[in-house]
Amino acid sequence: MKSRRTKVLHEVAGRALVAHVLASAADAGSDAVALVVGRDAEAVTKLGNALGHPAQSFEQTERLGTAHAVLAARAEIAEGYDDVLVLFGDTPLLSAETLRRARIQLADGAAVCVVGFEADDPAGYGRLLLDGGQLLAIREDKDATAEERRVRLCNSGVMALDGRHALSLLERVENANAKGEFYLTDVVEIARADGLGVRVVLADEVETLGVNTRADLARIEHLFQERRRAEMMAAGVTLVAPQTVFFSADTEIEADVVVEPNVVFGPGVSIAAGTVIHAFSHVEGARIGADVSIGPFARLRPGTEIEPKARVGNFVETKNLKLAEGAKVNHLTYLGDASVGPRSNIGAGTITCNYDGFNKYRTAIGADAFIGSNSSLVAPIVIGDGAYVGSGSVVTEDVPDEALAIGRGRQVTKAGRGAEINARNAARKAGRT
Amino acid sequence: MKSRRTKVLHEVAGRALVAHVLASAADAGSDAVALVVGRDAEAVTKLGNALGHPAQSFEQTERLGTAHAVLAARAEIAEGYDDVLVLFGDTPLLSAETLRRARIQLADGAAVCVVGFEADDPAGYGRLLLDGGQLLAIREDKDATAEERRVRLCNSGVMALDGRHALSLLERVENANAKGEFYLTDVVEIARADGLGVRVVLADEVETLGVNTRADLARIEHLFQERRRAEMMAAGVTLVAPQTVFFSADTEIEADVVVEPNVVFGPGVSIAAGTVIHAFSHVEGARIGADVSIGPFARLRPGTEIEPKARVGNFVETKNLKLAEGAKVNHLTYLGDASVGPRSNIGAGTITCNYDGFNKYRTAIGADAFIGSNSSLVAPIVIGDGAYVGSGSVVTEDVPDEALAIGRGRQVTKAGRGAEINARNAARKAGRT
Amino acid sequence: MKSRRTKVLHEVAGRALVAHVLASAADAGSDAVALVVGRDAEAVTKLGNALGHPAQSFEQTERLGTAHAVLAARAEIAEGYDDVLVLFGDTPLLSAETLRRARIQLADGAAVCVVGFEADDPAGYGRLLLDGGQLLAIREDKDATAEERRVRLCNSGVMALDGRHALSLLERVENANAKGEFYLTDVVEIARADGLGVRVVLADEVETLGVNTRADLARIEHLFQERRRAEMMAAGVTLVAPQTVFFSADTEIEADVVVEPNVVFGPGVSIAAGTVIHAFSHVEGARIGADVSIGPFARLRPGTEIEPKARVGNFVETKNLKLAEGAKVNHLTYLGDASVGPRSNIGAGTITCNYDGFNKYRTAIGADAFIGSNSSLVAPIVIGDGAYVGSGSVVTEDVPDEALAIGRGRQVTKAGRGAEINARNAARKAGRT
Repeated sequence: MKSRRTKVLHEVAGRALVAHVLASAADAGSDAVALVVGRDAEAVTKLGNALGHPAQSFEQTERLGTAHAVLAARAEIAEGYDDVLVLFGDTPLLSAETLRRARIQLADGAAVCVVGFEADDPAGYGRLLLDGGQLLAIREDKDATAEERRVRLCNSGVMALDGRHALSLLERVENANAKGEFYLTDVVEIARADGLGVRVVLADEVETLGVNTRADLARIEHLFQERRRAEMMAAGVTLVAPQTVFFSADTEIEADVVVEPNVVFGPGVSIAAGTVIHAFSHVEGARIGADVSIGPFARLRPGTEIEPKARVGNFVETKNLKLAEGAKVNHLTYLGDASVGPRSNIGAGTITCNYDGFNKYRTAIGADAFIGSNSSLVAPIVIGDGAYVGSGSVVTEDVPDEALAIGRGRQVTKAGRGAEINARNAARKAGRT
Repeated sequence: MKSRRTKVLHEVAGRALVAHVLASAADAGSDAVALVVGRDAEAVTKLGNALGHPAQSFEQTERLGTAHAVLAARAEIAEGYDDVLVLFGDTPLLSAETLRRARIQLADGAAVCVVGFEADDPAGYGRLLLDGGQLLAIREDKDATAEERRVRLCNSGVMALDGRHALSLLERVENANAKGEFYLTDVVEIARADGLGVRVVLADEVETLGVNTRADLARIEHLFQERRRAEMMAAGVTLVAPQTVFFSADTEIEADVVVEPNVVFGPGVSIAAGTVIHAFSHVEGARIGADVSIGPFARLRPGTEIEPKARVGNFVETKNLKLAEGAKVNHLTYLGDASVGPRSNIGAGTITCNYDGFNKYRTAIGADAFIGSNSSLVAPIVIGDGAYVGSGSVVTEDVPDEALAIGRGRQVTKAGRGAEINARNAARKAGRT
Repeated sequence: MKSRRTKVLHEVAGRALVAHVLASAADAGSDAVALVVGRDAEAVTKLGNALGHPAQSFEQTERLGTAHAVLAARAEIAEGYDDVLVLFGDTPLLSAETLRRARIQLADGAAVCVVGFEADDPAGYGRLLLDGGQLLAIREDKDATAEERRVRLCNSGVMALDGRHALSLLERVENANAKGEFYLTDVVEIARADGLGVRVVLADEVETLGVNTRADLARIEHLFQERRRAEMMAAGVTLVAPQTVFFSADTEIEADVVVEPNVVFGPGVSIAAGTVIHAFSHVEGARIGADVSIGPFARLRPGTEIEPKARVGNFVETKNLKLAEGAKVNHLTYLGDASVGPRSNIGAGTITCNYDGFNKYRTAIGADAFIGSNSSLVAPIVIGDGAYVGSGSVVTEDVPDEALAIGRGRQVTKAGRGAEINARNAARKAGRT
């Protein structure tokens, strides 16, 4: 990766690779996580915990093979959980569904279940050699006969083990091979020698793709997005140009939402029916109601809640904003740490002055209020229902319901002075050049 | 479609599917439209009328086959128009050229002309069985012999009928088939039995594509855009990254215009030679003269007219704006319901305050005027030729030609007070945390 | 091209076609340039000079073949430079590496070296007929035997000639052919007849692609961008969606920079490790330090220098800006001709008023300063370290270190007046409609 960060912290769809894998595991019923980490252990562990189940980290100091890596978490395995899923932190497309199917095999009596895939081009992969429903062996490409090489069923590396056998199987793996490493794949033959059942479930090849370069990362991001785009369209969302829309893993959009070209969804977005997200919008951490219009060129940041029939227009930034039904904020505005009541209109160029360099303060605007264009609302401040703020005002004191507030300099007009200034400025320029 | 709206109201290139079909029909000489509709009859009819020819709607209450659907419009067909074109509301890529060729066959003596296409994969389509120039039959896939199945010439469903025979042919279609439906395709055999000529014209397969899912919609949008992009480049327009530029059906661009990546054109745009549309621009309802510079990050809304050599820069929104030759509005500005004279300069952050919550008002700026940055122009207002508005002004009264207007608070500077405020704010933050 | 401009002035990656070719030539050691031009000679020559080596232009008034074109520059060739590279102004992907390899052949004793390529589909190209390491002849497609037509090694047109032989070889080319033109390819046989060595070096087919239409231009832009994207990823740059990022030829980005979707890099950009360029950013002429955050929706213009850990947020434009370490300018701001000291915070909607319609002036902001939102800083102006500017101020006089400056109108609030204004505006609207 040519990176200062450990590989599994790189992101797809705004989420670390390892977090994708942990999410699939959790979704498949995993209730404890043991992370075997090299670099950046602290950051990886933090991610594990953030997903809502306890994560235990184990540092792998030497790299002596996959079985050795798994045994770094020996303490957890020894707890005797029902199932042990052995996953890789860099395969973010692995689905929960595949893991669930592997667990069903364990529940059905298998001691080991290997996740395989039909490779487009199997060269280089270990082949899964089957006999009926049982896995006989995993044959490395270099050890395979010509006939075995024609097998397209390959080993993804992912494995599920029955907790009652897991430790015993793993501890009997030996390193009597060319590289002197402990290979997880040896578990298959050990289990068979014990007379235990070893089975295979199939994943799509894309689920098994790992990341080793930035190009891999981009390819997996692309596959992830293509999957999400297809899901969205199948669910009744119109994507005018699907390849230009980028989703997060958790984006939720109802049918009959239209998403125009060039839209990016960060985490934490939900959008109700009838809403249009216009082109060039960037939406993150926002709950958007029905029949809303967003953008073009809108930037919604976390904590944005937009009620039905409201509008957020171009070059508008929102953050921690509650925008009530039918309210409009259409142009060149920043609303941060604010609430706006129903039907209120926020003029072009309005700025909530919510920050003093150290602290953030709130702006509360009532219903049916009118904020004149280019106003500065100096928080903390309350502007009442039906209040009217004159254009270009700096508002520093609360405005009661139905009151008018104006805070701006009085205009002075001087005949002929404009021409003089222009002449002087032109002369200065001429003098300089 | 999983939609609350009827299918033909979904849009490609910003225009309803059915409107594309009606536009092709009109372009091919159609002068009356009969719409057979299920849901949303009112909205569909409105679209029909919007295209400038009278549209008559007929509700199809039962769905008893394609011939039955056509006969829902019996009253129109009985008028005895010269030609009857039977089209589908969900095939927006059907070209006027194809329809014109079908009409030529009728003019040349055919009573019926079927639009066919060479299918990449004909499986599932009805095959057109020819004998010389005549169409013998349309054979459904399930009824075809092995030899007939190898025929790649397929039925698009589109048909042209001579008005003198149309009603007689349609009324003799029977429903003595497995589904008990009246099939339009039966017209072919009836016409042949009458000794009438039945011919075929060929369309491109893409012209015949219909929409049944959001993915179909996206695919047809893509094909439409690819066609427009190729046409634009062939006409001498530079598209730096064609796949990132989105046109409307009516976009008009002269040769030697450069369009940078990521540009969206809404309806009603024309652009003259020598102009550059920079990246991330959104242009709609705008007439742009020669040698103009737009964007990046410009948003031109309907009613924008830009004369030669003018400039509209980043984070600028215009609406109902006339920007005269050589005028510049370069940064973070909203100009709505306004006119700007030749060579005038509109400073960064200028806002026309054109709306009072109920009504819109106009701003008129003369020639060679200078509007200082961050000014608010409270409409209705007139700013004269050669006038000068000081930065940060709120302008509420007209400014005569060559006059200076300033409307801002006077600066007060207090030594040491900045440090006190920062210290107090820092202490408050510390207290909170 | 259907263009008013000569073909070689059209651009790929923001640089004229001919400038790409000249850059490759310079990179391969060329130290003098002779440009044979038709139209727009002045503009082409200017480009030649801009690359830092003297360019001599020669107008080709008649078009009598490639050898004739080269001899238009006879005066330069007669100078007897060591090597003469004959290049085409419309092949921007030709690499310096290929030219270096051709020069090595000359250094190794060849009098002529032709640049060839393995054509995917050789039909139409002149074939290179080899005998061992020597080029026997260039056979035009129409003159080739069936066996020769199977040769996939084709002539790119690019040729390197030993300066000691170049003029003599070129002057002996005759026009005794169907078109009566002087063909550069005849040089091969003349040299062989003199007993001189004639060799071939291979280029990738894409290097030899020329531009004849806008579609060619778009295709070459695409190939150029694909190459740059792959190089960037290989060097450790994360591109979330590579196909949406557009580089210039000179963009320099360190490993562990993340570039989100939809980013355009103009010329003159360098970015240090740990920086994130968020979606929808447009960056040109900017030096960006480590661990900086840019965008989304940022527009950095030439002369922007950003020190480590600084932030530039949404709808912010910078030009000739020095932004010091840890400084923040997050929202809806224009900073032009300005410097901002370490840790200073520039509030939302701040505008540097740097232009009076004729001249530009500077704004200097110190360290740890706080500029309140929606302020106008009227340049030339100096704002000291630790200074505090109140929100909505127009600052026209310098602010000393640690001082407070406020320049805004005082707020006046009138009870009930807001309701009256709203009622009046509503009535006016009702009256109108």
